[in-house]
Amino acid sequence: MGTVAIVGVGLIGGSIGLALRDRRLASRVVGIGRSADRLGEAERVGAVDRSTTDLAGGVAEADVIVVCTPVTRIVRDVQAAARHARPTALITDAGSTKREIVAQVEADERTRPSFVGAHPLSGSERRGAEHASANLFEDRVCVLTPTGKTEPAPLDRARRFWSSLGCRLVEMDPETHDDALARTSHLPHALAAALAAIIPEELLPLAAGAYRDGTRVAQSDSSLWAGIFVANRRPVLDALEALRDQLIRFEKALRAEDEVALRAWWDNAKQLRAAYNHSQHHEA
Amino acid sequence: MGTVAIVGVGLIGGSIGLALRDRRLASRVVGIGRSADRLGEAERVGAVDRSTTDLAGGVAEADVIVVCTPVTRIVRDVQAAARHARPTALITDAGSTKREIVAQVEADERTRPSFVGAHPLSGSERRGAEHASANLFEDRVCVLTPTGKTEPAPLDRARRFWSSLGCRLVEMDPETHDDALARTSHLPHALAAALAAIIPEELLPLAAGAYRDGTRVAQSDSSLWAGIFVANRRPVLDALEALRDQLIRFEKALRAEDEVALRAWWDNAKQLRAAYNHSQHHEA
Repeated sequence: MGTVAIVGVGLIGGSIGLALRDRRLASRVVGIGRSADRLGEAERVGAVDRSTTDLAGGVAEADVIVVCTPVTRIVRDVQAAARHARPTALITDAGSTKREIVAQVEADERTRPSFVGAHPLSGSERRGAEHASANLFEDRVCVLTPTGKTEPAPLDRARRFWSSLGCRLVEMDPETHDDALARTSHLPHALAAALAAIIPEELLPLAAGAYRDGTRVAQSDSSLWAGIFVANRRPVLDALEALRDQLIRFEKALRAEDEVALRAWWDNAKQLRAAYNHSQHHEA
Repeated sequence: MGTVAIVGVGLIGGSIGLALRDRRLASRVVGIGRSADRLGEAERVGAVDRSTTDLAGGVAEADVIVVCTPVTRIVRDVQAAARHARPTALITDAGSTKREIVAQVEADERTRPSFVGAHPLSGSERRGAEHASANLFEDRVCVLTPTGKTEPAPLDRARRFWSSLGCRLVEMDPETHDDALARTSHLPHALAAALAAIIPEELLPLAAGAYRDGTRVAQSDSSLWAGIFVANRRPVLDALEALRDQLIRFEKALRAEDEVALRAWWDNAKQLRAAYNHSQHHEA
C-alpha cells in the first residue's frame, strides 16, 4: 500500500505502525505528531520508519493517511492532511465517536472525497507507543462508517487497510455507531470512574476482583475521555438514563427485600453476559 | 488442627479443603452438604477425605467447623453444627455479610462461645468445587469480625486457621465490615448486572474490554447475590446513593459540555484507582 502516514503515534497509532511493519504491508511508515519525545518513542519501538512534527511535509508523499489523534483534534487533522496530501490518498481515522467527525469532514468538499471514518475497538487504559503492539487489532472489530457521501474507491481501500491489520470489519452509519458505542464503551467508562470515586483510600485494602475489574478503565486518560463524552453526549445521556432505570429496579426490589425480583433482575443480566461469552467463542 | 468439617463444598468450601490437604494442615477433612452430586465432586477433586449429607454426624468429631453455605443459610447451619459439635470445637464461617449473621449467632447462648465470624475476600463468578483451588486464599485478605462477646480462645484459633490457608488477616466489627464491603464488593456486583442489562444482544459484537471487565461478575449466581444484597441492604442502599451522586456530577458536567469539570471528575477517580494499584504492589 505504499507510504502510510500516521498522525498521532500513541497506543493506537503506534500499534498500527507496528502491525504495518511487522506484516511488511507498507513500503514506508511515517509518524507525525506534535511532541518530539513521543515521536522518538515511536521510532524507538519500531512503529515508524521516520517521524516528523511537520504535518504538511509528512503527508505529502503518503498513499494512506491514518489520523489517530484524540476525537477533539481529528477533524482539523483530517482537514490539514487533506490540504497537503495527494488527491488520490486515502484518509481514515481511529476516533471513538463518529457522528460529529464524519459530518464535519463531509461538509468540507475538499476533504470529503478522500475520507472514510473508522473506529477499531482496540483501546486500553494504557497510553503511548511504549505500550503499542503489532497484534492489537488481531481479530478485533473495526467499525467503518461510510455514508451516502462516501466515495466507493476510498471505501474499498479503507476496507483493505483495516482488514490487513487483522481487524474484522463491521459497517454502519455514524449515528448507529455512536448510539451503540455509548452503551458498549462510553457509559462503561463513566461507570468505572463513578465506582472508583466512591471507594475512599482507607477501604481499598478491602477491595477485591469486582472492584479491580469494574474500575480498570478509570485508569484511562481524562482529556481523551472528556472529549469522547462531549462529542457523544446525547447518546451517552440516553445510556445513562437506561442505566438509572436498571438501578431503580434493583433498588425497588432491594427495599422490598424481594429476593425473587432480585434474582429475576440478576438472571436477565447474567443471560446477556452469557450471550456475550458465547459470541466471543463463536468468533474465536 | 485435627479434623476439619466443611459445611458447603462449593468454590470456597472446596478451596479450603484443597488448601488444608495440600498443606497437610488437618488430619482429616470432612465435607458436609445437601447434594450428593456436589459432595461427590468435592471428593473427586480431592477437596475432602470423606463426605456426608448428615450434618450431625459430620461435625461430631470435628475440631474446626467452617460454614461455607450462602449467607441466607449460615445462621441455621452454624446453630445446627453447634448442637452436634464438641463443646471445644471452633466454628467459623465464610459469609460475605457479617452484621446479621454475627448478631443472630451471638443471640444464641449455646452457639456464641464457639463462633468467630470471618469473610475471606476470595470470591469469583465461578461456582462449585470443580473450580476450587488450593491457592485461592494465598495473600488474599480475610476479615475476622470479633465483637465484645467473642471468646479469646476461639478467636486465637480462628486467626491461626485462616492464616494457615495463606490469608492476610484484618479485624473489624461486623458493622464496619458490612459498610465497607457494600462499597468495595456488593455495589460493584449490582453495577455489573445493571450494565449488562442495558446492552442488548444485537450490540454485543460492538462490546470490548470495558464491557467485558465491567460485567464479569454479573456471571455470578443470582440466589447467592440476592441473599447478600438483602442481608446488607441498608449499606448497599447508602453506597447506591453515593454512586448516584457521582453520576449526577458526571451528568451535569456533560450537559454543560464542561470538559474541565469532566477531567477533574475523572482525575479524582483515576487517582483513587492508582492508589489501589499502589497498595496491591506494596502488599505483593
